[in-house]
Amino acid sequence: MYRTHTCGELRSTHIQQTVTLAGWVQTVRKFGAITFVDLRDRYGITQLLIGEELNILLDQNPLGREFVIQATGMVSERSNKNPNMPTGDIEIAVQNFTILNKSAVPPFTIQDDTDGGDDLRMKYRYLDLRRNTLKKNMELRYAVNRAARNYLHQKQFIDIETPFLIKSTPEGARDFVVPSRMNPGEFYALPQSPQTFKQLLMVSGYDRYYQVVKCFRDEDLRADRQPEFTQIDCEMAFIQQDDILEMFEGMIKSIFKEVRNIDYTEPVERMSWEDAMWTYGIDKPDIRFGMKLANLKFPAHAFLNKESAFKEDMFSIPALGGGGAETILAIAVPGCSEYSRKQTDELTEWVKRPQIGMKGLVFIKCNADGTYKSTVDKFYNPEIIKSIADAAGAEKGDLVLILAGAEERTRKAMSDLRLEMGKKLGLRKENEFKLLWVLDFPLFEYDEEGNRWVARHHPFTSPKPSDIETMINHDPQIANAAEYLKHPYANIKANAYDMVLNGNEIGGGSIRIFQRDLQEKMFAALGMSKEEQQHKFGFLLGAFEYGAPPHGGIAFGFDRLCAILGGSEGIRDFIAFPKNNSGRDVMLDAPSSIDETQLKELQIKLNLQ
Amino acid sequence: MYRTHTCGELRSTHIQQTVTLAGWVQTVRKFGAITFVDLRDRYGITQLLIGEELNILLDQNPLGREFVIQATGMVSERSNKNPNMPTGDIEIAVQNFTILNKSAVPPFTIQDDTDGGDDLRMKYRYLDLRRNTLKKNMELRYAVNRAARNYLHQKQFIDIETPFLIKSTPEGARDFVVPSRMNPGEFYALPQSPQTFKQLLMVSGYDRYYQVVKCFRDEDLRADRQPEFTQIDCEMAFIQQDDILEMFEGMIKSIFKEVRNIDYTEPVERMSWEDAMWTYGIDKPDIRFGMKLANLKFPAHAFLNKESAFKEDMFSIPALGGGGAETILAIAVPGCSEYSRKQTDELTEWVKRPQIGMKGLVFIKCNADGTYKSTVDKFYNPEIIKSIADAAGAEKGDLVLILAGAEERTRKAMSDLRLEMGKKLGLRKENEFKLLWVLDFPLFEYDEEGNRWVARHHPFTSPKPSDIETMINHDPQIANAAEYLKHPYANIKANAYDMVLNGNEIGGGSIRIFQRDLQEKMFAALGMSKEEQQHKFGFLLGAFEYGAPPHGGIAFGFDRLCAILGGSEGIRDFIAFPKNNSGRDVMLDAPSSIDETQLKELQIKLNLQ
Repeated sequence: MYRTHTCGELRSTHIQQTVTLAGWVQTVRKFGAITFVDLRDRYGITQLLIGEELNILLDQNPLGREFVIQATGMVSERSNKNPNMPTGDIEIAVQNFTILNKSAVPPFTIQDDTDGGDDLRMKYRYLDLRRNTLKKNMELRYAVNRAARNYLHQKQFIDIETPFLIKSTPEGARDFVVPSRMNPGEFYALPQSPQTFKQLLMVSGYDRYYQVVKCFRDEDLRADRQPEFTQIDCEMAFIQQDDILEMFEGMIKSIFKEVRNIDYTEPVERMSWEDAMWTYGIDKPDIRFGMKLANLKFPAHAFLNKESAFKEDMFSIPALGGGGAETILAIAVPGCSEYSRKQTDELTEWVKRPQIGMKGLVFIKCNADGTYKSTVDKFYNPEIIKSIADAAGAEKGDLVLILAGAEERTRKAMSDLRLEMGKKLGLRKENEFKLLWVLDFPLFEYDEEGNRWVARHHPFTSPKPSDIETMINHDPQIANAAEYLKHPYANIKANAYDMVLNGNEIGGGSIRIFQRDLQEKMFAALGMSKEEQQHKFGFLLGAFEYGAPPHGGIAFGFDRLCAILGGSEGIRDFIAFPKNNSGRDVMLDAPSSIDETQLKELQIKLNLQ
Repeated sequence: MYRTHTCGELRSTHIQQTVTLAGWVQTVRKFGAITFVDLRDRYGITQLLIGEELNILLDQNPLGREFVIQATGMVSERSNKNPNMPTGDIEIAVQNFTILNKSAVPPFTIQDDTDGGDDLRMKYRYLDLRRNTLKKNMELRYAVNRAARNYLHQKQFIDIETPFLIKSTPEGARDFVVPSRMNPGEFYALPQSPQTFKQLLMVSGYDRYYQVVKCFRDEDLRADRQPEFTQIDCEMAFIQQDDILEMFEGMIKSIFKEVRNIDYTEPVERMSWEDAMWTYGIDKPDIRFGMKLANLKFPAHAFLNKESAFKEDMFSIPALGGGGAETILAIAVPGCSEYSRKQTDELTEWVKRPQIGMKGLVFIKCNADGTYKSTVDKFYNPEIIKSIADAAGAEKGDLVLILAGAEERTRKAMSDLRLEMGKKLGLRKENEFKLLWVLDFPLFEYDEEGNRWVARHHPFTSPKPSDIETMINHDPQIANAAEYLKHPYANIKANAYDMVLNGNEIGGGSIRIFQRDLQEKMFAALGMSKEEQQHKFGFLLGAFEYGAPPHGGIAFGFDRLCAILGGSEGIRDFIAFPKNNSGRDVMLDAPSSIDETQLKELQIKLNLQ
């Protein structure tokens, strides 16, 4: 061992002990004949004092930033204590030191506020990982991993490894594939998730399974997506939806406690997908704050149990693109009635950006004196203005924002605007955590191009028990594309659930189909022929013939969960060696070309277009 | 929840309670009007008693093997207790039951001694996994995983995930590669191990790293090799060899304790590679028993510190292929002097099998009366016969076995013969565990074809500190191929170590090179040009410039370790979903052909030969 102690553990109780430390030179400061060195390792920083008598040694072995050294000396009381450092009471009076390895000058400073840009930091990731910020992230990630495992272990879950070289069954996202040398012309796929394997494990009787596991998706990368990512993947048998919800809100609460020392004691709110979309405009609402959407007009989209605030189409506002808007939505922003013209103009510009894509924004200022001032005063009498403000739940001093347009886009825009206003007003507090279950998603989505149904979640998700009959008894064919919403399948709800944390989906899952006939009906509804079903999922259909138990599960996005718990919006700095937005590892310079002999052995060749 | 209790937990303390169980029908037995059902789940088996009053329900819903049912009833005392079952004191007087799912008749019986052949069991792996044997294996695997993690956590190791889509750097085994759609013509590789990443993490300052991680090798599969396998992968900084040995024998002992409740308190024996080869003929000796090799002739191979029992070439035995054998080895098999002609003939046949490849076997029977009887009596006088037996350490009643031939093959054959005799004599006890560290491997192996050096372990292994000078100061070029053993590199020892358990290598590792110049020298010694070094390992050489600490590590073969702890020779039944010897998953039928569109997107095409 090159050390007797770490750089984080010496205290005044160690004074007079002779110790050996090893680590990296953080700083070198010379005061006359004396040199102070801050020595850093994973555990902290300890001050070394190199006295005059070692000046010759120091001259022969000059120290620089990030040099790796070993130093032996006596723990001494500091004359000038530093209360901000755990080791601030002591220093090491160095008797001898050795340079274990030198360092070139790093391309950026190894400090909390580094001067390194993103590209440089990615290229020298091994140096970036030395920074305290990233170290804390890696430690947090490990703590989350450990907390999840401990909770699941205690609940009798068992970690069973599933294979990485599996079969390509393109459904949804694109598979990464791996050519097989031993089976020329054939390919393995890397798993997008262990979905079918965990279901098979339920059929095998392992009624509580988990895995913290890498998954792979060959998608065009958006910011903050990675081609390989980690899931906390779980499955249970002999359970219903409520059992899953209870078990896994327990897990997340346990992680909160272990990792952030947060006692999340209140029950987790549950909301139907329809309520979430209606009230927040999104299926993963941030419920740390209100500002709920007022639906001023009944939308074309299928909200079955909803009523809009106004029966009639009362709006025909040029600023919103004229009359006949499919959807009109309002929110009341608290305490913003005195926004200046500049501020409201900025908001208007904001909603007009291409990412939001609205034509304009209507304001109603609810003045402190009870009067209203609106950008559409000239079109409507004050009673109507007031009734809109009331519908939005506005109080004196609030600012009502109104958007109108096509259903989907307007709802999305209003959700974005709500989040933006929440952020502006400081309502999205970094240290507040609000969990939410979103339930009862539609089982199918309509695919306009193919005039057919696609699975919203995946083809293994069961309909709600009450909808199973509907699914079995109706033909999935859509006779009239224009009226697809009237097809019975449009209203089938999935026995599925998402866990949302502060407006982020951190986990999702479902109760699975476990009956062969229902699974075949599902595959058929998605347009899969019998032959295709057998080719792709014959093993699963087969397994369902030999006593498959009722089961369901959930998978958590581990990278995202860690980022949120770490108070960050980006996942990249919670992954030790991430890839950039082109899927490249710029440190390794991967992917890269491979040898002709490798291609030949695999019996493939390039076919560049 | 479909159940109030599991099938493994009810005891006589539960009598009179109404419970609901769910599980699989193991057996159905009818006694007159009464039906007994053994209901099975992951936790055990509970007997259900279905009385006469439910016969109509039973007629309408006949039960078969592996049906999934839910049954409610009262826990009752059994009249006929079964002391061999934890739940044997009670049974459930069923009040109601429901069939949750039916089962076709399984293709083999779900029992400890199944009637299913290997192929059938692989195809229906999800049924095979129901068998108690495999369930126990999966549980043992999880217990080993958990014990390793807990030990490492307690020792301040941190689990950091390394990437799976990396760069292909073909050294040693073949990489599996993954075509990149977003970077046409380029490929990722799947990691053969996280070797370079864990070294980078040491450079980053995470001084104790671990991971239980999948690794991939595209090798022609021998029996009991898998293209994907799991490692317990570890690395430490600021340590020397002894620190690693202590840390990880601690881990294995902790696993023994947690998983098998074995107190392995004695220190782990350490043996040099040279001693292992000399004394046991193999670098992973089973030291549960003696029967050490007597080296009757000094071999051509480089054993530096050894002396053979006889200086002269005293053997010229026709039965062993005549005179001039490169190597002559003997073992004394205890208590076998009275082997019959049939038995010795069988042994002779055994060594003549192509897998062993010897020309013959010489026997010396050391009779109880102190006389000797040998197959070579006619060639040698009794004194010589006696001196050979003495050299082999034979006592009265032993049988001395002698092999002669080319060095490598003969040593291997004698090791195999020793293991075979150990097995025959019951000296390789299933429940005895003997650990061994094998140290001081040669750093290089000679590659005859290329007349060059190859790394025995991998190019990141450091020479022993005392050999670093030799390595730096000599040209790796081998001027005279015939005398390669005289090249200074032939005698350089690696700072490497293998952990051996009962004759199996379960782990291996080394102290790493951490200096750029030494690493470059190593790459050059292996015939890598500067450009190639930079292209393949530029990131690592770069990292060594910025303060790399001394470090080293080890990786354990997790599958093998589990198999040995489970008392098995094969790893396949310790992996949930293994592949067969052609690398195929016969359950999934993977690998398989992929769509033309997938190939087109990847910009590759097949090039079948």
